[in-house]
Amino acid sequence: MAGSSNGSRASTTIGTAISSTIGSSIGAVALADLLGRWPTADGPLYRLLATRIARLSDTGELSPGLRLPAERELAGALAVSRNTVAAAYQMLRDEGMAESRQGAGTRIVPHRTTPAAVHRANGFFAGLLETSQVRADLTLATVDCAPQVAAALTDPAAIAGSQAIREVTATSGYFPYGTPMLREAIARHMSERLDLPSKAAQIVVTTGGQQALDLLIRSEVLPGQPVAVEDPTFPGVLDALHRAGARVIGVPADAGLDPDRLEHVLRTHRPALVYLIPAHHNPTGLVMSAAHRQQVVRLAAGYPETLFVDDMTLAELPLLDAAQPPPLAALGLDQPNLVTVVSLSKVYWGGVRTGWIRASAGLVSRLAAAKAAADLGSPAFQQAIIAALLENQHDDIVKWRGDWLRDRYDALTTALRAHLPRWTWPAPDGGLTLWVKLPRDTRDANDTRDASGPDGGVFAQAALRHGVAVVPGRLLSATGGAGPDAHIRLAFTQPPAILAQAAAALAKA
Amino acid sequence: MAGSSNGSRASTTIGTAISSTIGSSIGAVALADLLGRWPTADGPLYRLLATRIARLSDTGELSPGLRLPAERELAGALAVSRNTVAAAYQMLRDEGMAESRQGAGTRIVPHRTTPAAVHRANGFFAGLLETSQVRADLTLATVDCAPQVAAALTDPAAIAGSQAIREVTATSGYFPYGTPMLREAIARHMSERLDLPSKAAQIVVTTGGQQALDLLIRSEVLPGQPVAVEDPTFPGVLDALHRAGARVIGVPADAGLDPDRLEHVLRTHRPALVYLIPAHHNPTGLVMSAAHRQQVVRLAAGYPETLFVDDMTLAELPLLDAAQPPPLAALGLDQPNLVTVVSLSKVYWGGVRTGWIRASAGLVSRLAAAKAAADLGSPAFQQAIIAALLENQHDDIVKWRGDWLRDRYDALTTALRAHLPRWTWPAPDGGLTLWVKLPRDTRDANDTRDASGPDGGVFAQAALRHGVAVVPGRLLSATGGAGPDAHIRLAFTQPPAILAQAAAALAKA
Repeated sequence: MAGSSNGSRASTTIGTAISSTIGSSIGAVALADLLGRWPTADGPLYRLLATRIARLSDTGELSPGLRLPAERELAGALAVSRNTVAAAYQMLRDEGMAESRQGAGTRIVPHRTTPAAVHRANGFFAGLLETSQVRADLTLATVDCAPQVAAALTDPAAIAGSQAIREVTATSGYFPYGTPMLREAIARHMSERLDLPSKAAQIVVTTGGQQALDLLIRSEVLPGQPVAVEDPTFPGVLDALHRAGARVIGVPADAGLDPDRLEHVLRTHRPALVYLIPAHHNPTGLVMSAAHRQQVVRLAAGYPETLFVDDMTLAELPLLDAAQPPPLAALGLDQPNLVTVVSLSKVYWGGVRTGWIRASAGLVSRLAAAKAAADLGSPAFQQAIIAALLENQHDDIVKWRGDWLRDRYDALTTALRAHLPRWTWPAPDGGLTLWVKLPRDTRDANDTRDASGPDGGVFAQAALRHGVAVVPGRLLSATGGAGPDAHIRLAFTQPPAILAQAAAALAKA
Repeated sequence: MAGSSNGSRASTTIGTAISSTIGSSIGAVALADLLGRWPTADGPLYRLLATRIARLSDTGELSPGLRLPAERELAGALAVSRNTVAAAYQMLRDEGMAESRQGAGTRIVPHRTTPAAVHRANGFFAGLLETSQVRADLTLATVDCAPQVAAALTDPAAIAGSQAIREVTATSGYFPYGTPMLREAIARHMSERLDLPSKAAQIVVTTGGQQALDLLIRSEVLPGQPVAVEDPTFPGVLDALHRAGARVIGVPADAGLDPDRLEHVLRTHRPALVYLIPAHHNPTGLVMSAAHRQQVVRLAAGYPETLFVDDMTLAELPLLDAAQPPPLAALGLDQPNLVTVVSLSKVYWGGVRTGWIRASAGLVSRLAAAKAAADLGSPAFQQAIIAALLENQHDDIVKWRGDWLRDRYDALTTALRAHLPRWTWPAPDGGLTLWVKLPRDTRDANDTRDASGPDGGVFAQAALRHGVAVVPGRLLSATGGAGPDAHIRLAFTQPPAILAQAAAALAKA
């Protein structure tokens, strides 16, 4: 049991990782995800590790009585020595946070219980929830505020007009569907710019695309019902699905979705909902072909009880000059199970937290009722500003963001090709991320990797210690990964100079 | 079966009302709640009724196959003739929306199925979700925008400073906990004005008080777990609890909560959460006495696994000059299960949709993770404005709103005493509503009332046809009412002249 355990990380650990976080033990990989950016602070590694585990215990993310991974397994997943883990566990025991018994491993001491301490933690949003600093954060595909948007927020009367402003502040301020003015502006935007004829009655305004997905799931998916997603996919939808108790079924999409495989899942599982990102898929950046779109819409016609959700959050972020294909709903205007989700977070600014759902008027009514229970409506005043931006400055903002995006994309891809010539990724049509496949035999190999090939999680740990945060592919997987996953996701949303430095640092990891 | 059925509405119908909306039939009173403001549009009553039922079927609120109430029962609940209901059902059959079979009653025809059409609808928020107009809406306790708040939203730089504005737009805009600046401002506000020493790490910012409650329930209450509330209580918390599958237990509070009865519920049910409104209770407006507060805090010490939520949404709205008692958490600073919810919606404006939760840092971490899954954070820009208002203008706004409130309170109570001298209500210490008990024998009696006494639901229907919307007491009840409920809730948030007219109209209903 003592000494080095290089190569001994059992792949079964990975398979049970996610589910074991809610049982009586946690796998090494799942714990590594929860630990997030533990090695980026100052101090000896064992102390950082113990402190981070103790904090997760305090917050309930590691529940009382939970058995921690065996030392050698955790050492493998974190790419540290077993001595580091052993010292951290000893520190936890010394502080009364953990206890070890012969043959029963090391457990978190029950020192606090809450009724719902059992909840699933998603390591993906650790970057939002933590305050630790890395030199280059390539995890979050977030954009800074477009100057047109900042100007409008700062001087609302100049863009929205004082009349519109007086009108909104004269109301109660509660709009579970969104303000009438914004719903009208969105319907025009969808009809004229996105080629999808829409009425205001088909729109419900949400706090960003994330709330759009969460409301759809809360309202239309019952616990235990199957939901199909591309694998990999946007981690935010996985978080919402897991919290809702949905049964997530992945359809392989590392190089784009094959509609025949989706049909098989539809026939076999009859999912309540299918979540797709046909335009600039997250993380691959690929666009679904016109033929495949037609095929998906035909599938939707054959499965009218399944909602097909087309997430267009990244649709207005092309990297090429190709014409954008229409939304799925535009190909089946009489199919009420085609639902469209849009967000302005990646074009305007994440801080506006403005998205919406376009659906049948009946579904919109149910979603508004769910939104009333969730928050009684998004803040009202800003909706007048967003309506004016959509009407008057949207095209300017899209053009500005396109230039912004291509600068960053060029900087990262150029630097990666120079520093890491053996890394590969599907050439993205648009979006904010690269879906990198790590090569099997590279100089970034480290001594904990076994014969099963490179793993994005192990690489992400090593990268963190070189000051760069990346997302392990597994966190974007519908299943949490059934084995080592050679992918990492890199967002190219930092300034070009930082992206170039990050690529150089990644080459040393 | 034919002819009048006055007085025949069985009280058992009421008892099964709420639960039957998710079964295969719906009770007359539950359907009356869902119908909302159906008689306020133009046209014959039977047509308005049929149209409204058809719409509820379209939106899935009446699920396919659902059996509608017998004609005479629905006629009783709506205070209309049985002929009106019979004609409405016939119209639904003519349009293929319903079918009747011998002995099986009238059912909604299955014409559309969605995976989660089974959801609970809460009639209370109908006013937000509908566009129908009444002359005087006394249902929603909403306030217009305080002039200081409107000015700040219109010219943010004047109050927040251009430095703070540049700082926030330079970020990614994603703040699941809230922006650091606002969390600091809230912690100072709680410490200095609300007598509750607080740190920024104990605060998570939410989209109004409703989201604060929804996040607490989603994060800390599992389906089937018991939750104790005052009965009556804020309907928004009931909506969120029902959607989460909680088992709601009411503790009688028509004239204030008796802590001994709460202790009995704690001992018997061990609820996951207790929801209380100790300062200006909704709907009674009463303040919990200092002795009772102390007793509740001692109970919380004895049940550390139960979260005690103190909703202070109405706390800064006193009608009297009495000193405000401290929050429950101030009486038990070392008790991590004392949680405080605050909202600015009733003092500043509902449209700001700004509230927060003060809790232990560990619970706050879990709530922020739940908020990340729900919407990734509330809009960021406005948080800079709210922080500045809290720092610089809060006391002015509270004073302005207090004057605003007392004018309206005086107008409504004066007019009620003149027009309806036999109506009674507990004299409120603060808040926005009166909890009126209808007298047993008054001139507003109508011919469908049986010997069991007046019912707020039947009265609310009659009031609607006189152009005034009021909330039937049953919608604020934890149990949905175990029999006729003689209460109605009147909000005094409309302009004084409208409140005076409404009282005169209610006297005719």
